[in-house]
Order: sequence, then C-alpha cells, then structure tokens
Amino acid sequence: MLVTESALRTFTQNIFLKMGCSEAHAELAADVLLSADLRGVDSHGVARLTGYVRLWGKNRINPNPDIKIVHETPTTATIDGDAGLGLVVAPFAMQVAIQKAQQYGSGWVAIRNSNHFGIAGYHALMAVEKDMIGYAMTNASPLVAPTFSNERMLGTNPMCYAFPAGKYPPVIVDMATSAAANGKLEIAQRAGEQVPEGWLQDKEGNYTTDPHALKTGGSLLPLGGDREHGSHKGFGLSATVDILSGVLSGANYGPWVPPFVAFLEPPTDPVGLGIGHFVGAMRVDGFRPVDDFKNNLDTWISRFKSASKINPQQGVIIPGEPEYDAQIERKKNGIPIVDAVVNDLNELAKRFNIHPLAPPAP
Amino acid sequence: MLVTESALRTFTQNIFLKMGCSEAHAELAADVLLSADLRGVDSHGVARLTGYVRLWGKNRINPNPDIKIVHETPTTATIDGDAGLGLVVAPFAMQVAIQKAQQYGSGWVAIRNSNHFGIAGYHALMAVEKDMIGYAMTNASPLVAPTFSNERMLGTNPMCYAFPAGKYPPVIVDMATSAAANGKLEIAQRAGEQVPEGWLQDKEGNYTTDPHALKTGGSLLPLGGDREHGSHKGFGLSATVDILSGVLSGANYGPWVPPFVAFLEPPTDPVGLGIGHFVGAMRVDGFRPVDDFKNNLDTWISRFKSASKINPQQGVIIPGEPEYDAQIERKKNGIPIVDAVVNDLNELAKRFNIHPLAPPAP
Repeated sequence: MLVTESALRTFTQNIFLKMGCSEAHAELAADVLLSADLRGVDSHGVARLTGYVRLWGKNRINPNPDIKIVHETPTTATIDGDAGLGLVVAPFAMQVAIQKAQQYGSGWVAIRNSNHFGIAGYHALMAVEKDMIGYAMTNASPLVAPTFSNERMLGTNPMCYAFPAGKYPPVIVDMATSAAANGKLEIAQRAGEQVPEGWLQDKEGNYTTDPHALKTGGSLLPLGGDREHGSHKGFGLSATVDILSGVLSGANYGPWVPPFVAFLEPPTDPVGLGIGHFVGAMRVDGFRPVDDFKNNLDTWISRFKSASKINPQQGVIIPGEPEYDAQIERKKNGIPIVDAVVNDLNELAKRFNIHPLAPPAP
Repeated sequence: MLVTESALRTFTQNIFLKMGCSEAHAELAADVLLSADLRGVDSHGVARLTGYVRLWGKNRINPNPDIKIVHETPTTATIDGDAGLGLVVAPFAMQVAIQKAQQYGSGWVAIRNSNHFGIAGYHALMAVEKDMIGYAMTNASPLVAPTFSNERMLGTNPMCYAFPAGKYPPVIVDMATSAAANGKLEIAQRAGEQVPEGWLQDKEGNYTTDPHALKTGGSLLPLGGDREHGSHKGFGLSATVDILSGVLSGANYGPWVPPFVAFLEPPTDPVGLGIGHFVGAMRVDGFRPVDDFKNNLDTWISRFKSASKINPQQGVIIPGEPEYDAQIERKKNGIPIVDAVVNDLNELAKRFNIHPLAPPAP
C-alpha cells in the first residue's frame, strides 16, 4: 500500500497518543519513525510501531518520562531517560549537546535508561541543521557474536557521523557495525532466499546462509565477517559503541542489553538501566569558517562522485545520498508499506479505536 | 636481530637529531616510533624511519616546525603543523585537547599541514593516562578505492578509540578502515604468498590475491571487501576519517593527500596543507565517576573474555590486549627486527655517522 506522509504521520501520532504520550512527545516520536520511512530505511520506521506498543504493554516503556540530566560539565552530560521512548529521549539529549556546542564548541551526551531510538541519522542531522557535525550511536539487543565466539554479546550497534555540505546534501555515514543488519535477514526470509556467506553463523560457529539461523541459536557476524577479513575491526567498532552508550552512561551493555522484542524478558541481573545511547555535536566554525568547510566538502563529494567506475552504470555512492533521494521521492509520491506491516498497523488501529491506514483517495 | 628498547631508542633519537630536530622533538618522535615496535605493530615503528628521512631529504618534513593553534573555541581547535613530523605535531595537538578537556570536559583538535603520525594508539593513550577517553585518526596516502570504483581515493585511514579500564589494560580499538593494512601485503610479499580474496582488487576492479597488485594499478578494498559484505560501511568510516582529518582542518583530503613515499611527488593542485589528523579527549568523570566507569569496563572485559568459544583454544580477544602483552614481553626480552630493516637502519647510521644497531652483548 502507498500511503501519504501526512496520513502515516497522523496515524503514528495517534498510536503514541493512545499509549499515553503527551502531544509533543507523540509528534516527536512520529517524526523520528517517519523520517526512517521517508528515507527508505523501512526496517526502522513504522514497521517497528507494534514492537514499541508491545514493550509499552509490558510496562517496559514509560510514556511520560521525566528525562533528566544526572551529571554534567560544560561540554559533557549524562541523561537518564526514565525508561521513555528512545525516540524522544535521544532528541532531548541531542538538544543538550547542541546547546553545549553553541556555548563551548562541542557537546557530548551519554544516555542511560532509554529504549530504541529509531535511526541514528535523525539525531545526527539535528546537529547538521545547526552547521555542526553530528554523532549518534546506540547499543541494542544482543544478536552479534565477537570474533572467535558463537555467543550473542553485542547488538548491531549503529554509529552515525553527519556533516553539513554546501550545494550537496549532508554526508551521513549511518551504519550497523555488523556485516548485515537484521532487516536484511527479514527481507531474505520474506523472499524465501538464502543470504550471502559472511553475514551469519550457526550455533556452532559455522558460516550459514540460512536467514532463519538466529532462531536456532545462530548469531550475526561483525563487519568484516571473519578474522581474515577484519571481523576484529567490526567487533572493535561495536565495542566502541557499546562502551560509549552503555558503560559510560550507566546503561546495560553487552549481553545484558534488554531485548527489543517483548516476548523475551530482560536479564534478571542488569548491570545498568535500560539501553544506552551516545550523541554529540561539534560546531564546524569551531575549526574553520563554515563556508570554507562546506566548499571543501562539496569538492570532496564531487571528486568522489567522479571517481573512476568499475561498471560504467554504477558510480561511487556518497554516504547519505540514496536516503536523501528517497526522501524527496517519497515526500512527493508517498511511502510504500508492505502488506504484513499494513496488517499489523491496522490491528493496532482496531485495538486503539483509531482510523485504519488507507491509500490516498484516487 | 633482537635489540633492546634502550638501544633502539637511542639509535632512533640520534637519527632525528641528525635530521635537525631539537632534543625534545627527537625524544618524542623516537618515543612514538618505539611504542609501535614495543606494541608489536612493526609496520609503524622504526621500519618507517628511512621513509621519514627520505621525505626530509626532499624538504617535505620541517625538522623545526612552529606548531601553532590557528583557530579555537573553548573545546575545539585547529592546529597548523608547519610541515613538521606528525610524530611531534599529533602529541602537541593531543596536549591541547587534554587541556581543554581538563577545563571544559572535552577537547577536539583538527590538524593540518602535518605528516604521518605513527600509530594512532599512541596519541589516544595520552588521554587514557589522564582518565579520559582518547580519539585519534589520520588520513593517509591514497591506496584504497571506494565501493564501485577502481581508483585509489583514500588512505588506510585509521581510527582509534581508547578507554581506561581498572584492573585490566585499557581497551584500545586502533584499526585501519581498509579490509587489510598495507603492512599485511608486505608480509605476504616477503613470504612469497598470496593474500586472501577480499583485500585487494586489480586495475580493472577484479578481486586479486596478488600482494604486488598495488604496483600495477590495483587498490586496497575498504573494510567489508565488497558491497554485499558491507564495503560501503568501510568506505563510510574511511570517509569520516578523511573529512574530520582533512576537510575540517584545511589539510589535503581524498586523492590529494601527499604520498608517504618520497619517490612519488605530491599532487600539483593541492586542496589544503599537508596531511591531516583529528584527535580528541573526553573526561570520563564528565559522565560518571571514574571508578564506576572503570569497574563497569572491567565487568565488560571479563564478560567478553568469558564468552563462549568456537574453538576451545581461542577466546575473544579484547581490543588492545595483544599489543599490551607484546609491550610487556618486548620491554623485557628486546625487540625483534627483520634483517631488511636492520640493513636499512644501518645504511642510515653510516650516512649520518652514528653507531649502527647491534644485538645486546651476550
């Protein structure tokens, strides 16, 4: 089904309102989810709405959190999200980082006691809009095994760096630190296809191409796949995200991170509060005049776009460009939603007694 | 040949003194190189000394740089290295970052007009010694092709994150953002062996296992290897390093980064000054008490060390641990140097009229 941005936005806001969120929080949470759908990151948009509702149903999400700074210096802070939606906790934290950067050049905020925060790129882009460099990362449900292990110890732990350009869209590096994100397995599952070697291992630690392997004790592999191809680097990046998001903030980390799926209970021996994020902002003009930076980043982008191609049909893709293009297209033509997600969402509509999703009038 | 730390240190200092460095700079530059040799990162230690001397011989390294802050806010700065050795410019920059962090919680410094800075871990560890989290990255000679391209556009652009632990050694993630670093090709070349698929492509963009492929127009691949295995992520990380180190600082970036090897001339149309680095420091107690952080990082480390093993002989390796162990061993037993490097170094000794390297007296 193709749904307009505004219809999907209203629907999503209504769900958050029914969960007991304030108007402002419902609007913000919907904006974060919609930005994923608009940018073509379908796995992180409204497809996750039922997941958030289920966690709320288990009292694992507080719809009216008292989000608080619990520790700070002029340019650093730790925030307790009071078990709120990461979708509202992380933007709050990024606002704090931006204010600190406005005053002192940079701002860095570790967040504990939160929940999943949607796409990292949303939060990093808040800084970019202020001519700052944005950072955002989060730990997540353990699905990834470190190099040499067959135990799920880490989430797909994304890291995001975003930079404002001049005539081009911002450069946004927003990536899971695993070889492949969970969403790619779901696509293969729906299509009944195998996945490439190097994404997954089975319970014993052998490569497998079965996209269902996580259900039988398998695990995702870090970026790099195996040691020979640098999986220790993917593990190192994932560890960095986990330490900054979890250990630094006082959240859970490693295998103690509470699972996103409500049918799995959180560990009974937590080492911290909820899941953790880490965000930051640095003023570009803390280093050089904004126009100088943007002009040079434009030169960087155009030079990379003109790099010699292996296949004449496919040039270098600037990080963030496909998502930017998707946003323009989907704002104009609507957001495609697969049937399974439409059904899930309309189950929610029935339960909460709100209008179901419908395609735009012809 | 096995050489004692102190003999190698004196030898290296003497070379830098003969290049015209001050006593303090010679001592510092030698300390950075020695730390690589001690930590087992042989490719970045004294093996590079002849490379630095050749660049100096071409007037591309200024032995007496006037290193200056050219732009700053309370927590950010840009430093011009005056074409000095990265081995002294980067520690200067990290001192600035640490001072800013002491005062405001964090400090971030972009560096232009520098040269290769040795191992990133050295600089990041300076922050760790002050109970701070350390960041260090640098761009480098273009050898790596972005995804979908067969043109060398990026260096192996390492990024490093370092965290102070309690009873364990610091966690140090120090990694090239390419699938494999150049040093690994050199090892295969010396051994007359092929390298794994996924490290390199030939001039046309086909995978090759020939470790000499860079000499015939080939290129290194980003971490991930190919698109299906996430090479766009390795490219994104490398781009992040290049933008922070080069575009933000006013150094060269992308294919304009001047080559480390003196027989290749720098591009005649530079977009900035020299090569660039980016370093940073955040006070741990800007987020939570140092002891809380260290205790939790110890828990993190011990939990990961006890993760289930695929092969009972090989557990999870904590980032930074092998290098820490190597340092203990080599400080005690000496540093092994391969014959080719000993010969190179003793050629330098002859040229500069200093004592050649010799094994310790029996």
